[in-house]
Amino acid sequence: MTITPTQFHDLMLRRRSEIENALDQALPTADTPPPQLHEAMRHSVQAGGKRLRPTLVLAAHELFPSPRNPMPAAVAVECIHSYSLVHDDLPAMDDSTLRRGQPTCHVAYDEATAILVGDALLTLAFQILADSYHDEPTLSVALSRVLSKAAGSAQLIGGQMDDLLAENDPDPDPDLLASIHSRKTAALIIASLEMGALMGERGNDEEFIALTRNMGLSLGQAFQAIDDVLDATALSDQLGKSADQDGPGGKCTLVTYHGLEEAKRIAAQRTEEAKEACRKLGGDHGFLLQLIEWLGSRDH
Amino acid sequence: MTITPTQFHDLMLRRRSEIENALDQALPTADTPPPQLHEAMRHSVQAGGKRLRPTLVLAAHELFPSPRNPMPAAVAVECIHSYSLVHDDLPAMDDSTLRRGQPTCHVAYDEATAILVGDALLTLAFQILADSYHDEPTLSVALSRVLSKAAGSAQLIGGQMDDLLAENDPDPDPDLLASIHSRKTAALIIASLEMGALMGERGNDEEFIALTRNMGLSLGQAFQAIDDVLDATALSDQLGKSADQDGPGGKCTLVTYHGLEEAKRIAAQRTEEAKEACRKLGGDHGFLLQLIEWLGSRDH
Repeated sequence: MTITPTQFHDLMLRRRSEIENALDQALPTADTPPPQLHEAMRHSVQAGGKRLRPTLVLAAHELFPSPRNPMPAAVAVECIHSYSLVHDDLPAMDDSTLRRGQPTCHVAYDEATAILVGDALLTLAFQILADSYHDEPTLSVALSRVLSKAAGSAQLIGGQMDDLLAENDPDPDPDLLASIHSRKTAALIIASLEMGALMGERGNDEEFIALTRNMGLSLGQAFQAIDDVLDATALSDQLGKSADQDGPGGKCTLVTYHGLEEAKRIAAQRTEEAKEACRKLGGDHGFLLQLIEWLGSRDH
Repeated sequence: MTITPTQFHDLMLRRRSEIENALDQALPTADTPPPQLHEAMRHSVQAGGKRLRPTLVLAAHELFPSPRNPMPAAVAVECIHSYSLVHDDLPAMDDSTLRRGQPTCHVAYDEATAILVGDALLTLAFQILADSYHDEPTLSVALSRVLSKAAGSAQLIGGQMDDLLAENDPDPDPDLLASIHSRKTAALIIASLEMGALMGERGNDEEFIALTRNMGLSLGQAFQAIDDVLDATALSDQLGKSADQDGPGGKCTLVTYHGLEEAKRIAAQRTEEAKEACRKLGGDHGFLLQLIEWLGSRDH
């Protein structure tokens, strides 16, 4: 089923609103003791953003929808993403003061609180998977396996470690750069799509899951390439974070390594690959296809 | 079945060795990319310690043993405990340079690595529960629920937050102090016992699980009281960490609040309560009873 750009944008807004309501419900209230911790958790999660990863969970579930509720898994993925931003922003890591146009957690509160907020969001992700799907334990465990692997030391966390170590490397290795992107960005995007697919009617179809992961890899690489292009070109107020933080003396990116035009070409190519893979998945892929297209043309 | 003190000490040593072997197997090898992260994970987990929490998992399983292997759950609990120590030791938190006689993770490596090591160990705990028990998904989910709740923002992490906020409070509230101990120390001890009990033959007996948790609460309170007494009296080289760090100008403890003698009395009373609860559990409680006794008389 194809959908029009207007229908797509309406759906995106509606989904984002549903995701934010579900996050609001899943997070402990701000007055839960200790209030400082729970306020700061909410501050960090509710600062906004595209909600890309939970949207991907919902979109992948929709390909071959089941009566299962994919929202708790979507919320769990966003908790992981939010925790990783809170910790990445810390002074000992990327030392960022602004995120999504808001003061980062350690600036709004303090470093100790930000460390604990990250820990708490990470723990909450697994609590949500265990609590929300305990009536379907096989599914719950499958979701927890996918998420813990993607978020673990070989993927998300390892990517951040290598990203920090590669900073200011005068002679960056392009293979390492690709590997950092694959772990730091693509892994959680792949996991989001896989988790959504696992909850759908074809969740037991290994070939379908492999195709979904394959699409996720192209999408993740496209997403990172566009991020690098935007970081090199966009204004801070469009990004809601300090632009050009990855420039000279900073992190190695596709732009610093290959130049702007080549980075744009990579972004376009990976986006096409992701769209092609999406069409192959079959099912009700109209929304997901538009989402990939939209991500490929985004300017923030 | 009662066991002699010699048998108990032999068993403790053997269990500790088994736990350390299992940790060694469960942790990624030091050369797994990125090596710095995985070396630092191993440094932090392998620094030793009593391995109390995993030993409690094994001991609770042994009360009414099943053919299930409790070791992965024991390892998962120790990963949570180790991560919490790595993060608690950070400069923004307790700022400790020595732990178990070794430089803390951020001293041996750096702050960014220590933050990521903690994140990785926390994630690994849930990966282990999901991977190791996926053939028994109902059990896997039950274990994940218990551990995520105990390690979450309302318990372990919330206790650390309040502990930090209560530092240097000139007029500490004894109820808050008890609540901090209950969340920061007792919660994971209770969870360890509950996880072991859940894997045993009486894992579906709610009354038995409630009794086990009850024993854990007394044991956790006893353990914290003894920690406070030791911190106030022992030498640094016995503790393997800076003694009297909790003294004047530092954290509020049972000793700073009630005085040394009253703290000792509380420790003895809670230990007796835990032993009484342990006897009521029935089953093969000889080792667990001796363990509670030993913890009550420990000098390090």
